[in-house]
Amino acid sequence: MSTRKRRLGGWGFEGEGFAPSSQLVEWLEAHVGPPGPAITGDTIQMPGREPQALPLAPSHNISTEPEDRLAHARGQGLADVIRVRTGTVRTIPDAVVRATSAAEVEEILRTCDERGIRVVPWGGGTSVTGGVNTPDGGAPVLVIDLEAMSGLLHLDTQSNLAVFGPGTPGPRVEAELGKHGLTLGHFPQSWELATVGGWVATRSSGQESLGYGRIESMVAGLELVAPSGKWQLPALPASAAGPDLRHLVMGSEGRFGIITEVTLRVRARPHTTVVDAYIIADIERGMAAVRTLVRSDLPLSMVRLSDPRETLVAMAVGLGSSAFAPLVRGYLRLRGVANQGCLMLVGAKGEDEDVADALTAARSVLGRHHAVSLGRQPGRKWQRDRFHHPYLREALLDRGWATDTLETAVPWSRALETRRQVVNAIAETAAAEGERAVTLCHVSHPYRDGTSLYFTFFFRTAPDADRTIARWAGLKRATSEALIACAATISHHHGVGSWHAPWLEPEIGQLGRDILLDAAQRFDPRGILNPQVLLDPTDRLED
Amino acid sequence: MSTRKRRLGGWGFEGEGFAPSSQLVEWLEAHVGPPGPAITGDTIQMPGREPQALPLAPSHNISTEPEDRLAHARGQGLADVIRVRTGTVRTIPDAVVRATSAAEVEEILRTCDERGIRVVPWGGGTSVTGGVNTPDGGAPVLVIDLEAMSGLLHLDTQSNLAVFGPGTPGPRVEAELGKHGLTLGHFPQSWELATVGGWVATRSSGQESLGYGRIESMVAGLELVAPSGKWQLPALPASAAGPDLRHLVMGSEGRFGIITEVTLRVRARPHTTVVDAYIIADIERGMAAVRTLVRSDLPLSMVRLSDPRETLVAMAVGLGSSAFAPLVRGYLRLRGVANQGCLMLVGAKGEDEDVADALTAARSVLGRHHAVSLGRQPGRKWQRDRFHHPYLREALLDRGWATDTLETAVPWSRALETRRQVVNAIAETAAAEGERAVTLCHVSHPYRDGTSLYFTFFFRTAPDADRTIARWAGLKRATSEALIACAATISHHHGVGSWHAPWLEPEIGQLGRDILLDAAQRFDPRGILNPQVLLDPTDRLED
Repeated sequence: MSTRKRRLGGWGFEGEGFAPSSQLVEWLEAHVGPPGPAITGDTIQMPGREPQALPLAPSHNISTEPEDRLAHARGQGLADVIRVRTGTVRTIPDAVVRATSAAEVEEILRTCDERGIRVVPWGGGTSVTGGVNTPDGGAPVLVIDLEAMSGLLHLDTQSNLAVFGPGTPGPRVEAELGKHGLTLGHFPQSWELATVGGWVATRSSGQESLGYGRIESMVAGLELVAPSGKWQLPALPASAAGPDLRHLVMGSEGRFGIITEVTLRVRARPHTTVVDAYIIADIERGMAAVRTLVRSDLPLSMVRLSDPRETLVAMAVGLGSSAFAPLVRGYLRLRGVANQGCLMLVGAKGEDEDVADALTAARSVLGRHHAVSLGRQPGRKWQRDRFHHPYLREALLDRGWATDTLETAVPWSRALETRRQVVNAIAETAAAEGERAVTLCHVSHPYRDGTSLYFTFFFRTAPDADRTIARWAGLKRATSEALIACAATISHHHGVGSWHAPWLEPEIGQLGRDILLDAAQRFDPRGILNPQVLLDPTDRLED
Repeated sequence: MSTRKRRLGGWGFEGEGFAPSSQLVEWLEAHVGPPGPAITGDTIQMPGREPQALPLAPSHNISTEPEDRLAHARGQGLADVIRVRTGTVRTIPDAVVRATSAAEVEEILRTCDERGIRVVPWGGGTSVTGGVNTPDGGAPVLVIDLEAMSGLLHLDTQSNLAVFGPGTPGPRVEAELGKHGLTLGHFPQSWELATVGGWVATRSSGQESLGYGRIESMVAGLELVAPSGKWQLPALPASAAGPDLRHLVMGSEGRFGIITEVTLRVRARPHTTVVDAYIIADIERGMAAVRTLVRSDLPLSMVRLSDPRETLVAMAVGLGSSAFAPLVRGYLRLRGVANQGCLMLVGAKGEDEDVADALTAARSVLGRHHAVSLGRQPGRKWQRDRFHHPYLREALLDRGWATDTLETAVPWSRALETRRQVVNAIAETAAAEGERAVTLCHVSHPYRDGTSLYFTFFFRTAPDADRTIARWAGLKRATSEALIACAATISHHHGVGSWHAPWLEPEIGQLGRDILLDAAQRFDPRGILNPQVLLDPTDRLED
C-alpha cells in the first residue's frame, strides 16, 4: 500500500513528474505560440482565515490543520491547480474528518444535518469537473475523507464478488485481488489516486473498458449513507424488480449520500496484456476500422485511435525518438496522407495463446482496412506511461502553457461532426481574443453503437490566475455548447461536477432534472451534501 | 406481419397449441396426482355491465365492444387465464383506445388526467405478474393499446441504432431488421406476442441474453409520454452525465408514463445459430460447468442447464421418443447418478466457422467437467418448440392440472440453496392442504457473478376458480417469501406487476420505494397510470 505523499497544487505524488520533450516544447511554440507567464507552485499560501468550530464528537479523527484543509479544498481540474498554485483559492473546508465506518458516517451526517453543516465526500480528490470543491456561502463545510475506509471487506470466490471500502484506491484494489488471482480490470488514468467510491459516484470508465466494461457493469450491489438513513442494494447479477436503483447512485456524485460499501464483479487475473500498434490512413478509415473491431466478437481489451494531430504529437513526443518514426513517415508519404495518418492501439488480455489469437484476428481485420503494423513498442511505451501522462500538465504550467482535457460520447454517425465542432469551438474561441489554441482527439472507449471522443487542448497562460482561468472558462463554455448542439453527452466518464452542471438539463431535460432534485430531497432534505454539484446549474467555472 | 387472431382465455393465437404427451400425463398422475376439475374456455362470458362513457374526442380509435374490453382486462398469468375461462373476471376497462402517435398519447393522457380516468398501457398483453390487469375501484379505466404504433421508424446504419414504435412485436422487429441484414437478438419466450415497449417497461430478457444481453443493454435512447409531459432521453452509447435515467424508465411498468419510442442497438444478423446438448452428472457439477463457460470469453449465445427433475421430464416428454433416451439412461446408470443427471444446452451464433470454433471450445471445457455430448437433435427440438411451450398450460388446464412459472436471480454462491428453498416452499405449501405440487428448475440466463433460476411447478385444480386461484396464491406467497429470505430478487425478467409488488420493498428498501413513489408523483401527479402495479403493496393475487 502506497504511503507516498500527495502533491499540493498538482497531480499525483511528490517526486513524480512527466517532463515535456524538447520536441513537444517546439511543437507548442509553433502551434500555440510562445509561453505566457509561468504558473509554478511557488506562491502556494496556507489559508489565514480561522476555521469555524464544528460541533463534532472528539472521538472522530478531525483535522483543522491549514495544509490539510487546503489539500481538501479543490479537485484536480486545471482551474483547481491554478488556484492552489497562485494562492487564489477562495473557499476551503473548516475541517476534514477521516471516517472509519459506515456507522461513523451516519453519526457525522446526522450531526451535520441537525447543525446545517455542509458536507463534501472525498475519495481520491481527483475530480476534474469541480466535483469536490468547497462550496461557497456562509455555512460551515466539512470534508468527509474516506481514505480510512479502504480495503477488501469480503470476497465471495464462488460468485467472483468482492466487497470494498469506498476509499480503496486502484493499486490497493488490484493488490488485494491479486492475492486471490483476481482482478477488477478498472484502470482509469487516475487509477493510482482515485477510489472505488469515487469511481461509482462518477460513473468512471477505465482504459480497458472494451474488455472489462465501465464501472456500471462491475457494480453488483452497494451501500449508501444519506442524511435520511442507510440504504443497501443487494448484490444481484440482474433483476426485473422495477427500475435499477443502483443506476441512481452511480453518477450521484455525493449529492444523494456517501457510498460506504461497494460489491464489485471481479475476474480471473489475465496472464498477460499485449498492445499492438498500427497506423491507418485517415480518421474516417480509422473510425470504420474501430467499428468493425468492436462489433466483432473478438475478446479485445482496448482499441484506441488518435486523430492525425494527436498522432503527429505522439510521434514527436514519443515515437519521435524511436526507430519507427522514419518508417511511419515514409508510409504516410507513400500513401499521400502525410498529415492524415492515425495511430491505433489494439490490446488483448488473457492466456498467451488466446491473446495471440485475438490479436492475429484483429490484424487480419485491420489489414482489410489497409492499416500498417508498428509492432509492440508503442503499446509497451503507452502501457508504461499511461498513469504518468497527467503529470505533464504541471510541467507545462511551470513553462507558461496550459492544457486541459474534455470528453464526450456520441453515436458513430455523429462522431466525426462532433469532433470537428469541438475542435473548431476551441480554435475559434481562442482566436476571438487573438490567441491560438490547438486540440488533439482520440477514440478510447468504442462501443457497438458509438464512441467516446477524448480531447486534449493547449493554450497560453494569461497575465494572472483570474485571466488564465477566464480564458479556460471561455473554452469550456464553447466546447460544452458545442457538445449540446451535437446531442453529444456532456461527459463520457469525467462526470458533471459543478463545471458541467449548467449543461446537464439540456441533456436530460427538465423532467429529468426534476426527478433527480426530488431524489436529492428524499435522501438529503436539507441539501447539505455536496450542494454545488450535478443539480445546481450555476456557472462556477471561474470560482 | 401477422394478422392471426389472439386467443381469449389462453396464450397466443387461435389454432395454435402444444398438447402434453402421454408420458407427461402419466408423470403428472404419478407426481401430482389425478387431475382436478377441468378449466376449459367453455364458460367465457362477456361482461354485461355497461361501460362508463369516457369523454374522449371521436377522432380517437375507441372501442367499447365487450369482447375487446374483456380481451384487455387481464394479462397472461395463470390466474388471468382461469378468471377469463371461468367467467369470473371482476374488473374490465370501460374502453380501449388504439393510439397512433405520441401526440395522440399526450392528448389522451391530458384528458384522462383532467377527468380522473385511470389508464393501463397495453403492448402485447403478456404480463404474467398482474401488470396490465384493470384496476378496481370506481373511477373509469381506459386501456391505451399501442399496437398501431408499430414498426421501424428510423435506422442509423452507421451506428446500428434502430428506432421502433412501442407496439412492435418480436416477429416484426426481426422482419424489419432482417431486410437490412440486422437483428435485435431479443427472444423472450413471449417473443411472438410481446412488444418493444413492454420489453423495456418490464426489463425483459431473451433466451439468448448471454450473447445479446438483456433489453437494458440494447436500449440506447427512449421517449416517454407522461401526464406531466413528453420526455426524451437521447441515444448515447455511454455517459457520465449523472445517474442513468434510462434505467428509471426501464422497469417502470407503465407507472411513470407510456413509452412512445425506443432506440435500440442492433447487430449484424448471424449466419447461423447452433445449439449443442450435453448431459452432466449432477446439478452441482452442472452449475460449476456453466460458471466456467460464462467466465470464458467464448462467444456463446446461450447456456441452459435443467435440474435433474426437469431433465427427467424433458426426457419423458421430448427425448423419450428419441434414440437418445436409452443412451442417456445408460450413461447415468453407469455413473451411478441415474436420477441426478442434468441436461445442458450450449448455443453459439455467427458465421459457420466461428460457431464451430466456439462450440468446439465449449465442448473441451465441458469435457473437463465430464459432460457427455447428446449431439444437436435436442437443441434443434428446443429451438423449434421454444415459443410454443407456453401453450402447454392451457392444454393442462383443459385436463385439470395447473402449471405456472416463477423466476429469480442470485449470486452463484446462493444459487443451490435458493433452488432448494423454492422447491421446498412449493412442496410444503401444497402438502399443508393435503396436495402435492412438484417443481422443475433450470438455469437459462447465467452471468459471471450469478444466475437466473427459472421454476415451473404443477398442481391440481381445485373445485372452483376461486379455490384454484387461492391454492396458486398460496404457492406464490410461499415462493416470494422464500426468495426474499434468500436475498434473491423477486423477479429476473417477469417484472413486478401487482402480484410481486408486496415483495418489492423488502428487496429495494423503504428509501428505494420512496424514491420511486416520488418519481411517480413527478411523472403522474394524480396517479392515473397503471396505479396497482409496482408501488402498491396490496396483495392482489386473488383478485
